[in-house]
Amino acid sequence: MHKIIQDLNWRYATKKFDSSKKISPEDFDIIKESLRLVPSSYGLQPLKFIIVESQYTREDLASATYGQLQVVEASHLIVICCATNIGEKEVDCHIENLANTRDLALEEVSGYGRFMKQTISKMSAEEKLSWNCKQAYIALGQLLHTCANLRIDATPMEGFDPKAYAEILGINTEEYSPILLCPIGYRDEEDATQHLKKVRKSQSVIFEVK
Amino acid sequence: MHKIIQDLNWRYATKKFDSSKKISPEDFDIIKESLRLVPSSYGLQPLKFIIVESQYTREDLASATYGQLQVVEASHLIVICCATNIGEKEVDCHIENLANTRDLALEEVSGYGRFMKQTISKMSAEEKLSWNCKQAYIALGQLLHTCANLRIDATPMEGFDPKAYAEILGINTEEYSPILLCPIGYRDEEDATQHLKKVRKSQSVIFEVK
Repeated sequence: MHKIIQDLNWRYATKKFDSSKKISPEDFDIIKESLRLVPSSYGLQPLKFIIVESQYTREDLASATYGQLQVVEASHLIVICCATNIGEKEVDCHIENLANTRDLALEEVSGYGRFMKQTISKMSAEEKLSWNCKQAYIALGQLLHTCANLRIDATPMEGFDPKAYAEILGINTEEYSPILLCPIGYRDEEDATQHLKKVRKSQSVIFEVK
Repeated sequence: MHKIIQDLNWRYATKKFDSSKKISPEDFDIIKESLRLVPSSYGLQPLKFIIVESQYTREDLASATYGQLQVVEASHLIVICCATNIGEKEVDCHIENLANTRDLALEEVSGYGRFMKQTISKMSAEEKLSWNCKQAYIALGQLLHTCANLRIDATPMEGFDPKAYAEILGINTEEYSPILLCPIGYRDEEDATQHLKKVRKSQSVIFEVK
């Protein structure tokens, strides 16, 4: 069996982490760099990843996560946020980064910038948030894959109170909105969920050939 | 450098595929199985992956993709669809699969089914579509990671006409909605984009420690 399939079968939404086990700085560097490399629509990277290190803060967050203790007990807690109302400023930043990285004159890429601005200006605030929120899910998909490859456990979570998270973490929600949580670390040997068979539809149900 | 980081640096949104190069059945099996294993909210897997094999159909689709020829020239074209209006039927299917897979009596898991039904019944049709649409993006994130690991090129695409896709592919949009395209295969050596430096924000910009 290919390692990818072994990894994805190995992973599961961890219910209980072993709080004594910490991710090594080397592995965490790989995770961070893999998040930095996540692709996004137009390459705009409308994302911010908040790493919550303070144990005190994480205990505060537990009550805004309906008591799910993974946010406290996991080695690291990542809060994936997306840009709330992306606009001209973000496009300008990207275009500048593009020009710098590829050693181009700003004039050579400004047409692309104008095109992006035009596209974005046609979207309502709600449409922009929804669009950028989806980019957070691409990051989640890659993060879970990276973690499984490194045999690091993870719990993808949509269920939390984003307003309370913003307050506790001091996030300016006009700039960024908390979308997803992903506590990562190592499963507790007492977490019975790890022994349950993975439930998935069969290939014949989810694939269709045309 | 860890293989994951090498892989993610190697990948790029391919502009031109070499249409003479085909993904081996062995690699495509890994891709399919990895898509089957993609996690989803409540484990409901509200996704359908359409593999468009017919070259004739793919040429038809090009005009519904604003002439982006990757849908024709790539080795394989995957259309990621999500459930349009998930409801009790889908929950019952999942609960039945759960009971069968884990060798449980239906009664033992029916409470969980009722909980899911309750949650879903509170959502508007629009909210349900938006929720399931996000699950498609998790699949995209994992797919791009899997492909990069196998050194298979891919082009994630949001820009296409979903109505025309549904018509051409005969998708009943009351059941499934086309959300994302991902042509996969091998880059053409003449695709100049492959030589461009990857543009990403620095870690100091996208990470924040609390």
